Amino acid sequence: MTEHKYSSKKAGLPPGTLIHIGKKSSKEVKISVMDYTDTHFFESDDVAIEETFSLKETPGISWINVDGIHNTDIIQSFGTHFDFHPLLLEDIMNTLHRPKLEEFQDYLFLTLKMLGIDKKGESIIIEQISFILGKNYLISFQEQAGDVFEPIRIRLREAKGNIRNRGADYLFYRLIDAVVDQYFFITDHLSERIDNLEELVLTTQTTAVLHQIQESKKQLILLRKSLSPLREAITLLQKNEAKLIQKNTLRYFNDVYEHIIQVNESIEMYREMTQNLTDLYQSGINNKMNQIMQVLTIIATIFIPLTFIVGIYGMNFDYMPELRWKYGYFFTWGIMVLVVLVMLIYFRRKKWF
Amino acid sequence: MTEHKYSSKKAGLPPGTLIHIGKKSSKEVKISVMDYTDTHFFESDDVAIEETFSLKETPGISWINVDGIHNTDIIQSFGTHFDFHPLLLEDIMNTLHRPKLEEFQDYLFLTLKMLGIDKKGESIIIEQISFILGKNYLISFQEQAGDVFEPIRIRLREAKGNIRNRGADYLFYRLIDAVVDQYFFITDHLSERIDNLEELVLTTQTTAVLHQIQESKKQLILLRKSLSPLREAITLLQKNEAKLIQKNTLRYFNDVYEHIIQVNESIEMYREMTQNLTDLYQSGINNKMNQIMQVLTIIATIFIPLTFIVGIYGMNFDYMPELRWKYGYFFTWGIMVLVVLVMLIYFRRKKWF
Amino acid sequence: MTEHKYSSKKAGLPPGTLIHIGKKSSKEVKISVMDYTDTHFFESDDVAIEETFSLKETPGISWINVDGIHNTDIIQSFGTHFDFHPLLLEDIMNTLHRPKLEEFQDYLFLTLKMLGIDKKGESIIIEQISFILGKNYLISFQEQAGDVFEPIRIRLREAKGNIRNRGADYLFYRLIDAVVDQYFFITDHLSERIDNLEELVLTTQTTAVLHQIQESKKQLILLRKSLSPLREAITLLQKNEAKLIQKNTLRYFNDVYEHIIQVNESIEMYREMTQNLTDLYQSGINNKMNQIMQVLTIIATIFIPLTFIVGIYGMNFDYMPELRWKYGYFFTWGIMVLVVLVMLIYFRRKKWF
Amino acid sequence: MTEHKYSSKKAGLPPGTLIHIGKKSSKEVKISVMDYTDTHFFESDDVAIEETFSLKETPGISWINVDGIHNTDIIQSFGTHFDFHPLLLEDIMNTLHRPKLEEFQDYLFLTLKMLGIDKKGESIIIEQISFILGKNYLISFQEQAGDVFEPIRIRLREAKGNIRNRGADYLFYRLIDAVVDQYFFITDHLSERIDNLEELVLTTQTTAVLHQIQESKKQLILLRKSLSPLREAITLLQKNEAKLIQKNTLRYFNDVYEHIIQVNESIEMYREMTQNLTDLYQSGINNKMNQIMQVLTIIATIFIPLTFIVGIYGMNFDYMPELRWKYGYFFTWGIMVLVVLVMLIYFRRKKWF
Amino acid sequence: MTEHKYSSKKAGLPPGTLIHIGKKSSKEVKISVMDYTDTHFFESDDVAIEETFSLKETPGISWINVDGIHNTDIIQSFGTHFDFHPLLLEDIMNTLHRPKLEEFQDYLFLTLKMLGIDKKGESIIIEQISFILGKNYLISFQEQAGDVFEPIRIRLREAKGNIRNRGADYLFYRLIDAVVDQYFFITDHLSERIDNLEELVLTTQTTAVLHQIQESKKQLILLRKSLSPLREAITLLQKNEAKLIQKNTLRYFNDVYEHIIQVNESIEMYREMTQNLTDLYQSGINNKMNQIMQVLTIIATIFIPLTFIVGIYGMNFDYMPELRWKYGYFFTWGIMVLVVLVMLIYFRRKKWF
Repeated sequence: MTEHKYSSKKAGLPPGTLIHIGKKSSKEVKISVMDYTDTHFFESDDVAIEETFSLKETPGISWINVDGIHNTDIIQSFGTHFDFHPLLLEDIMNTLHRPKLEEFQDYLFLTLKMLGIDKKGESIIIEQISFILGKNYLISFQEQAGDVFEPIRIRLREAKGNIRNRGADYLFYRLIDAVVDQYFFITDHLSERIDNLEELVLTTQTTAVLHQIQESKKQLILLRKSLSPLREAITLLQKNEAKLIQKNTLRYFNDVYEHIIQVNESIEMYREMTQNLTDLYQSGINNKMNQIMQVLTIIATIFIPLTFIVGIYGMNFDYMPELRWKYGYFFTWGIMVLVVLVMLIYFRRKKWF
Repeated sequence: MTEHKYSSKKAGLPPGTLIHIGKKSSKEVKISVMDYTDTHFFESDDVAIEETFSLKETPGISWINVDGIHNTDIIQSFGTHFDFHPLLLEDIMNTLHRPKLEEFQDYLFLTLKMLGIDKKGESIIIEQISFILGKNYLISFQEQAGDVFEPIRIRLREAKGNIRNRGADYLFYRLIDAVVDQYFFITDHLSERIDNLEELVLTTQTTAVLHQIQESKKQLILLRKSLSPLREAITLLQKNEAKLIQKNTLRYFNDVYEHIIQVNESIEMYREMTQNLTDLYQSGINNKMNQIMQVLTIIATIFIPLTFIVGIYGMNFDYMPELRWKYGYFFTWGIMVLVVLVMLIYFRRKKWF
Repeated sequence: MTEHKYSSKKAGLPPGTLIHIGKKSSKEVKISVMDYTDTHFFESDDVAIEETFSLKETPGISWINVDGIHNTDIIQSFGTHFDFHPLLLEDIMNTLHRPKLEEFQDYLFLTLKMLGIDKKGESIIIEQISFILGKNYLISFQEQAGDVFEPIRIRLREAKGNIRNRGADYLFYRLIDAVVDQYFFITDHLSERIDNLEELVLTTQTTAVLHQIQESKKQLILLRKSLSPLREAITLLQKNEAKLIQKNTLRYFNDVYEHIIQVNESIEMYREMTQNLTDLYQSGINNKMNQIMQVLTIIATIFIPLTFIVGIYGMNFDYMPELRWKYGYFFTWGIMVLVVLVMLIYFRRKKWF
Repeated sequence: MTEHKYSSKKAGLPPGTLIHIGKKSSKEVKISVMDYTDTHFFESDDVAIEETFSLKETPGISWINVDGIHNTDIIQSFGTHFDFHPLLLEDIMNTLHRPKLEEFQDYLFLTLKMLGIDKKGESIIIEQISFILGKNYLISFQEQAGDVFEPIRIRLREAKGNIRNRGADYLFYRLIDAVVDQYFFITDHLSERIDNLEELVLTTQTTAVLHQIQESKKQLILLRKSLSPLREAITLLQKNEAKLIQKNTLRYFNDVYEHIIQVNESIEMYREMTQNLTDLYQSGINNKMNQIMQVLTIIATIFIPLTFIVGIYGMNFDYMPELRWKYGYFFTWGIMVLVVLVMLIYFRRKKWF
Repeated sequence: MTEHKYSSKKAGLPPGTLIHIGKKSSKEVKISVMDYTDTHFFESDDVAIEETFSLKETPGISWINVDGIHNTDIIQSFGTHFDFHPLLLEDIMNTLHRPKLEEFQDYLFLTLKMLGIDKKGESIIIEQISFILGKNYLISFQEQAGDVFEPIRIRLREAKGNIRNRGADYLFYRLIDAVVDQYFFITDHLSERIDNLEELVLTTQTTAVLHQIQESKKQLILLRKSLSPLREAITLLQKNEAKLIQKNTLRYFNDVYEHIIQVNESIEMYREMTQNLTDLYQSGINNKMNQIMQVLTIIATIFIPLTFIVGIYGMNFDYMPELRWKYGYFFTWGIMVLVVLVMLIYFRRKKWF
């Protein structure tokens, strides 16, 4: 999760200069297309960019999905042919951009984050995903090919539900909903992780544990940064009477909005919980220190006086009456046993063991 | 209280897909019905779902109570026959949903949390409860059968008070009021628990105590998450001139609103108090450490010099004049007593004992 | 200050059920009455409730003061005869209710807290006080008889100032002002207490001190909870063009509002200061620990090497040349003195003493 | 800075009762007057209060400056002759009042704080200063005579700039500006003080240093309390189309507003910095403790085993073969040197010295 | 970064008095000019101030850049000839002024901060930069000559892009954009620095590291103070329908606004991260202390009892049977080995090594 880097790459360039900011990718950009009405359905998995330009004019709903945002030429081509604002193209290619919604004359632009968990199940992957919604088309730009939209593709192909009867705005909702639903996997993952850490921190206080807590904190900071602006964006969508969103689709966006709030609330909750974990960790260390000190103190306070006593009778004075007593040695032992007993009673009372 | 889990269960499914998210239940769903006007009263404890459909049209007020929300078919049936929005049905079955109010054309939807304390009196149980208020009917969906609505049932049966003279909106208020009243049991429970913990933490600082503080913190985080959205929901109800709520019932909702604020304020107060408990715990540990260190230091600083002195006269040099003195031994004792006295005076002054 | 308890007493009861929530009282409820115009004045110290009912209709301003809110019958009687809303009666008897203002058709209801300091000068007493302002009457409900309104009574009797020339709303203001003025005694009390604690905490860090800091924190939490809703209530009074408040009285309520803000700001300030006290306490403990460790370390590090040296010459090897030297003993002393000096210089440099 | 005291002095008194709340002063109240138009100028240093009353009616701008607010009679006189609201007079005499702006029919009232540093350069002095702006007069009430307005007096006398051509509102601005400019001396003073403390805290961690940090914190709390309400007051002035402020003077008030924001931001910044200082102090103490523990541990762990070794050969068993060896003594030394070396290597690796 | 100083320099002076507040500079102020339309282009690198006055009237867009703001005469000249408000001139020369936007009759004033990193790459340089936008001219005032605007100059000279076809408002945007783009270098720099510190703090906990953390905190506090008011300023620009900004340029300012939000969010994120670093540092120290205590305790608790045992047989009692036993010495060794083993097993169980 080193998302917060290289954001200065574009500094000094004129507006509208396209530069890819994000993880380098050598894969080829793949464009897939679906064009449908309730009766008609066309799908193509890998089309040349030029083939998509005509779709803007067809009466059916067209969904153009672009996997890969690192190719400046392709993004520029879309911009030119669909007549998109140059700043919008910049935002598509900038994976560090915060989620936002912008309404233009003929289209609506939304960029947000897709979250995933890496294969080892340890760190969270943040991917940029952008949508341009036109009157009868929807273009989606993904950093990498993913399978999160697959269920929607299947429903489109099989004409399940009422998805083929409705407009591009409903498809738009369904895609956003699919992205937001993924967020719950992340909160589940975090929930589990924090529960594990809590159990761990009660028994072991190594720097490794501290490191894990720290890592969770950083992840939560980044997540919040990635998700909380989305709330504003969707609010804008709800409140705004965007021409491109039909009234009966709005209630669905309301549902998405609630999911985003729920995710945000969970993240805040986890942040408090991780903060508590640090407290727990600290308390654990203090407790251990305390215990060590107790042992040291008990041992030292018992034996230091005894060592003094035996030291006395190790002195070589010519005249030391006790040394000559017959039972002096045993008497000394007696005193020492007494000292130990007194000490033990004292410690017991102080509840030191 | 593991409420924050498995929220990703629904990810990827189309909107309106009904799935129960919550604790599994094998009990059968039980539907009870009350239908009344000021003069007429009908009650049935266990009716088939089909029998309820006609109630929508009867002139009397009908209260349909559904115990159990894990049966998709039943929820779907209600949706179909009463013509409820599919997203609303989803919310009823999702026990992780945050409290919310949504107004539809012909009905009002409210989902909130019922709180209880488990039998051992230790942990807090959070249950989902949803209401759909129509013109002359009210449907309530509970996760499990509970007796919190019993007093209201009795009043309905016995026609006590003016409850039978008023509309479904008043019944709606009475049920919400019953749920919210339960919250005060929780705040009383927490108040007592925190008072106990405070007394405990001043005397014992074991990890068990820390664990209990931690547990209280987590409970409060979850409670806040469950209750604070309710405030918004009820505000919406107050501000909104919902057609389904009559004007003279609104003042009652105002009362409910105040209770919710009071509960929220109490929870915030308890959160501060638990935070203070952690500080107290930490101070307790530090204090104890301090005390231990004092004992160690007193013992060590008294005996270390003494041991040195007796060590001197344990040396075997051929020529050590003091060893030959007649009262050397007693003189040495004298010096040692002096050292001890000086030390004790020093410690006394430093207020170490 | 166990104000936060038993709030669940009313749970499950229908709205309008009167129950006293608060400290039990066996005293009899006492009702006193003042009725005046600028020319006429009538006062009675102990009247039966029935005598008050007619006052609603008299042309003069009537102030009915009720000492004691634990008698359900009396409160109910007022409700019935003056035609008050049942929920309002509930709020009067619920000492846990937060301050609030509610406007009804013919009257205005305000409930707030009276603060006092107990006889030992240690803990803060929170009392409920409620006002109902009608067109030409004002009813005040106090938990216990108090002398805070005495100066106002005197002015009424002696017709001092312009109080007898003005309406019930001005009397209403004067009573609220008297209650709010009392708050300054509390802030003065707290200010003094925190100053004392600050001096104390710099010299002694016993658990008793910690307990006092903790107690102050809790008091401040409760105070804030009792006072901050009052701000909203008075704001409502100011903004609202309540029919019952005349325009030239409004500026006076503005003054009361400022006092409440000032008290709230002071409480926030004291909260920060008490938080600082905890830090100071902790630093004090750490400092003391540090000092103890220094003494221990100085003593131990000086004597441990010396004890080793004298231990060497206490060995009984047959062949140990130094033991046979004539000045071996004195030479050893020389070395030991040297060691001590080196140590002392080292500690001095480290600024350990 | 014991500003937060005796605020209960007025409790129980009727509104409009004048009482001086603040530091006692036995100085006589001094009234000075300036009356000017662009062509005419009159100044008198010490006038009787009666002489000022006629100034209300003169066509020129009159600035009446009152040094000393502890004389009830004088304040009351102003109130009576200029027809000021009694609550306003109360506020002038109450040095604990928070800054506020209030608009009346014919005049504008502003009270704020003047800040200064005492002669020793250690503590901050907070003084109350109030202004009443009328159509062609301005009355200023200062706790004590000060020289902060002197430059303005000189400009008035010498007719420098355009100050004599403009109205009372511009003079009002100039006086406020002079007061607010003083605040920057305080922030400079605090800035320097915190920088000094930061240097100090890195080298010495005595309770004296802690006390200084604590003192700075308290000063900042009080400063914030004195200054932040001023922001609201000036905002009110800006937003309100107060009749008494001319449009071209408003831009100047905007400038004052920005200065106040800047001062408030600086204070917030210093608060964060002082909080950091406490952390630094704590870290310093911990570091020192750590260092002490290291020395103790190094000394103890080196010598404790050695002392044990020499102890062995101090035993008096009849049969101890090593004691008879010729080189036993030197061999023992060899072992001890070895032990020390091993220890030192271990500590070195652990980076303990 | 001692930006927060000497802000009181201007106190007591009348409004409009020009004084340079900032780092002293002895360099001469250099004025450069560009005047262009889409067809015409004139550039001069070093012009006298008088030459610029005529540019106000020319039909082309004129960009006047002033390097150096410490010369009162030059700023005053601009003020007189372009008829700028005196307070605006003050703000240009005051490098401590917070970012702000102010709209005047014929021109718009914006002052903000330019950020850079010093040559050693360690500390952040904050420079004041102010813009005055007129109908067909733009004046920029920089503290020092810099090369951040060079790319824009090149584009103007070479007539690249559409910059020469558009108005002064577009040039204004391009300059602000160039300044804001620089901020990303700072966030990248901070990101790297915090990552380095995080790695460092896990291994070494010296005061030098603490000092670096502290330094980062202070930098972030100052950065926030320099940047967060800019957000308001640009919001004002967006919301305001400023006559001088054309509608199609507004969308570009929206883009700048988003960049500023992003920078602010990053700074907040870094603040949280540095706070975490302090926690990590503290934990590191505690851990080390813990480790040291463990070593001390292990060594001490093992050897203290052994030393006691050997002390016993160093006593000189006449009658001590064990001393006479043949294998007494070896038996003693046996006991001591046993003690050590028991201890080691105990420590192992406690997981102390």
